[in-house]
Amino acid sequence: MDRTIDLNSDLGESFGAWTMGDDAAMLRLVTSANVACGFHAGDPVTMLGTCRIAAENGVAVGAHVSYRDLAGFGRRAMDVPAEELYGDVLYQLAALAGVARVAGAPVTYVKPHGALYNRIVTDPAQAEAVVRAVAAFDGGLALLGLAGSAVDDAATSAGIRFVREAFVDRGYLADGTLVQRGTPGAVLSGDDAIAQRAVRLATEGRVTAADGTEIAVEVDSLCVHGDTPGAVAMAAAVRAALETAGVRVEAF
Amino acid sequence: MDRTIDLNSDLGESFGAWTMGDDAAMLRLVTSANVACGFHAGDPVTMLGTCRIAAENGVAVGAHVSYRDLAGFGRRAMDVPAEELYGDVLYQLAALAGVARVAGAPVTYVKPHGALYNRIVTDPAQAEAVVRAVAAFDGGLALLGLAGSAVDDAATSAGIRFVREAFVDRGYLADGTLVQRGTPGAVLSGDDAIAQRAVRLATEGRVTAADGTEIAVEVDSLCVHGDTPGAVAMAAAVRAALETAGVRVEAF
Amino acid sequence: MDRTIDLNSDLGESFGAWTMGDDAAMLRLVTSANVACGFHAGDPVTMLGTCRIAAENGVAVGAHVSYRDLAGFGRRAMDVPAEELYGDVLYQLAALAGVARVAGAPVTYVKPHGALYNRIVTDPAQAEAVVRAVAAFDGGLALLGLAGSAVDDAATSAGIRFVREAFVDRGYLADGTLVQRGTPGAVLSGDDAIAQRAVRLATEGRVTAADGTEIAVEVDSLCVHGDTPGAVAMAAAVRAALETAGVRVEAF
Amino acid sequence: MDRTIDLNSDLGESFGAWTMGDDAAMLRLVTSANVACGFHAGDPVTMLGTCRIAAENGVAVGAHVSYRDLAGFGRRAMDVPAEELYGDVLYQLAALAGVARVAGAPVTYVKPHGALYNRIVTDPAQAEAVVRAVAAFDGGLALLGLAGSAVDDAATSAGIRFVREAFVDRGYLADGTLVQRGTPGAVLSGDDAIAQRAVRLATEGRVTAADGTEIAVEVDSLCVHGDTPGAVAMAAAVRAALETAGVRVEAF
Repeated sequence: MDRTIDLNSDLGESFGAWTMGDDAAMLRLVTSANVACGFHAGDPVTMLGTCRIAAENGVAVGAHVSYRDLAGFGRRAMDVPAEELYGDVLYQLAALAGVARVAGAPVTYVKPHGALYNRIVTDPAQAEAVVRAVAAFDGGLALLGLAGSAVDDAATSAGIRFVREAFVDRGYLADGTLVQRGTPGAVLSGDDAIAQRAVRLATEGRVTAADGTEIAVEVDSLCVHGDTPGAVAMAAAVRAALETAGVRVEAF
Repeated sequence: MDRTIDLNSDLGESFGAWTMGDDAAMLRLVTSANVACGFHAGDPVTMLGTCRIAAENGVAVGAHVSYRDLAGFGRRAMDVPAEELYGDVLYQLAALAGVARVAGAPVTYVKPHGALYNRIVTDPAQAEAVVRAVAAFDGGLALLGLAGSAVDDAATSAGIRFVREAFVDRGYLADGTLVQRGTPGAVLSGDDAIAQRAVRLATEGRVTAADGTEIAVEVDSLCVHGDTPGAVAMAAAVRAALETAGVRVEAF
Repeated sequence: MDRTIDLNSDLGESFGAWTMGDDAAMLRLVTSANVACGFHAGDPVTMLGTCRIAAENGVAVGAHVSYRDLAGFGRRAMDVPAEELYGDVLYQLAALAGVARVAGAPVTYVKPHGALYNRIVTDPAQAEAVVRAVAAFDGGLALLGLAGSAVDDAATSAGIRFVREAFVDRGYLADGTLVQRGTPGAVLSGDDAIAQRAVRLATEGRVTAADGTEIAVEVDSLCVHGDTPGAVAMAAAVRAALETAGVRVEAF
Repeated sequence: MDRTIDLNSDLGESFGAWTMGDDAAMLRLVTSANVACGFHAGDPVTMLGTCRIAAENGVAVGAHVSYRDLAGFGRRAMDVPAEELYGDVLYQLAALAGVARVAGAPVTYVKPHGALYNRIVTDPAQAEAVVRAVAAFDGGLALLGLAGSAVDDAATSAGIRFVREAFVDRGYLADGTLVQRGTPGAVLSGDDAIAQRAVRLATEGRVTAADGTEIAVEVDSLCVHGDTPGAVAMAAAVRAALETAGVRVEAF
């Protein structure tokens, strides 16, 4: 077996006096860091700090762009007109790219955050605005998201490399979409079970859906969450299990 | 006579639904546009729009970085620790540089705004933080400010080109500093008088201070304000008078 | 004929250095002022100033509560969970009520703004959150909105007085809803035509829809816009026509 | 001995997705809660939650008003003009007062936060603006601060009750002012030592300064910090020691 997989995590989500997650610990475990750009989290000092640690650990840095919604942590869908969304994504991407370059870790990809991530699974206008902003800034950047989504289509049409992501601790429905947050089975627990799930995703591209169906999931990168109390332990379990299974963990 | 002078103006200071100034008209008259970067004014759509018009008119674009103070328009001095100010300047500069590049008008300089501009005339710690951020992002950028100030010293020490600015419609004291806003004589009026003042500054490097003293003012760039009702007429008068006097008006 | 009608307008929509509308002029013409509370517009100094002028003119003050969206001026629909919306409305209402009381003009009603106004026409969860916040703060306040909407239902169920609003310069469809912004016929022009439309609404409760149908519109208050260049002239024309037609213009 | 003392703590300092401190635990130990009002911390849902727990525990609620500085947590001094500061304080106080009343815990006092707290020790213009806002909103409210400060003078002149505060875990200089943060001896450690210091402050009104001098400190309320990891343990130690020493711990 000669599989390779990327591990990505949402980091740099502190803001001013408020701390979220343990970036230093996570950056020893993941290979790609989705760094908040100031619109849902991430003041400039936090961005600099997270990018510096990413650079020290050879972790790839991505722009974790969001709706402008600090109070809602970017988790509330917004009807942002395409031109405004284009500007907001471009602004955040440019800001992080500059900060990250100074920190020694050039931005190599973009991953939309939270409600924006979910919205562009199905909303072609917002998906296309995000893709246009990425392409305008640097057509060599990759875009991380859900395979088969509106943003996958838009990126592919625009010649932007699309990196397909799966979630190690989220429940899947038989159609390959995620069980909605707030619904039973949306978020899984048990580090061992999650680690084995990660191994199957990485080696077979398969996962057991909530109803027991075995489904295929195309995946280039596995997302491990960084903001929960047990995040570091879960990420460590996932990484160890992948390596034990002979999977090479490295940035896409 | 073969003098050359730059005309700069604070532009891109609209925000969301609120408009300030007439950027399109001003961009036909000035040679350098100080574009707000989102911390005191300037949402991404505004930044894009102003930079596009600057590109069309061959106007140089500078990052008009500020304290993070939308409610106060960056006019309130803040005791921002050096590391935070470094991050804030770097973030704003990076964001505008990316937006401007996409709009076809690369950023060539930085001009601090409002209270930050005034603070770094005398505060070496904040001045040095600003200079470090500029140098870290791109040591080839120029920094616009007051000759002989703390930021002039810091820029010169760091090998950053410092562009000396004078104000066509502000009163000067005999020691070369500005009459403080809110004091009689702080802001001058009369387009013709201001235009003649601009010509003397550009051709002789001299201005009449509030007490009648003739003083020398080293100047590479003249600032014309963009946000007042009569701004466009005043800028037009200044530019016409300079050209009539044989001064070439172009970006530094 | 002995009809009475209220004229309301969205005011206090300046923010910091940015001015919107001519509050002083509008407050000589309208009888109810919907004053922004800081989430889409309206810093505290603006709120104080607008409320003081309202007090001097005997104009009723309402809290113009909004989504938290300064960059979008509250015009972008947001999926805000009910508990957060409840808190946001309560916070804004309380802030304005205190400011207005100090300015001598007690708050007597609430009018949701922009995207929130539109959302609670059809979204019962958000409508109910708004009504609960109003009822919790002061059950004696009125709520201004569209007759027959979800928020009308929610207010009526909760025992909150609902004041029905019509728009003098917006096109109507045959079913009594508004022609969507961005569609031809959404916003009408011509001060005389608009003034006559206002008179028919106030005296007959009827308006001609976009397709020529005559429709009935229940109305206690007519909204005149305050933020457009011709706003003052239009409001003056509307008020004069109403008075000429024998309609008494006063707060509900 | 029949001494009574108030214990106050800065609470409600979470914001959106970010948590700070353990309000529920602290509200079982203190008698006055300084609740953030949204300008340095404290979204409306947090404000509601903290005020509800305060109500359940019979804890007095104060408005912890701040400069408008979410990114800096209100810890950066700002040159805010008096009229703007007056508006900002009035707005925050009104917002919290409404929220707290709905939560069942009426606001009884105001305590300025962070950099504003420090600034109005010596700045009469800002001190007077704060006092005017409190007096305009409700002249029956108390104001919490440092004895002998500019704000003490301003409150006393305006007929506002001034409550004198001391800090159990901060070092004092021989002149009664605090050792500046960042200087050795600024923040003390050791729960027992701090608890004994609290007892001496409450029973004798005396504390040992950094240079060994015994100084007198007039005190109505002791501040225990709520945002550090050991905050709950320290507050518990302070409260237990006070009660053991026969001091009645209750709101002023």
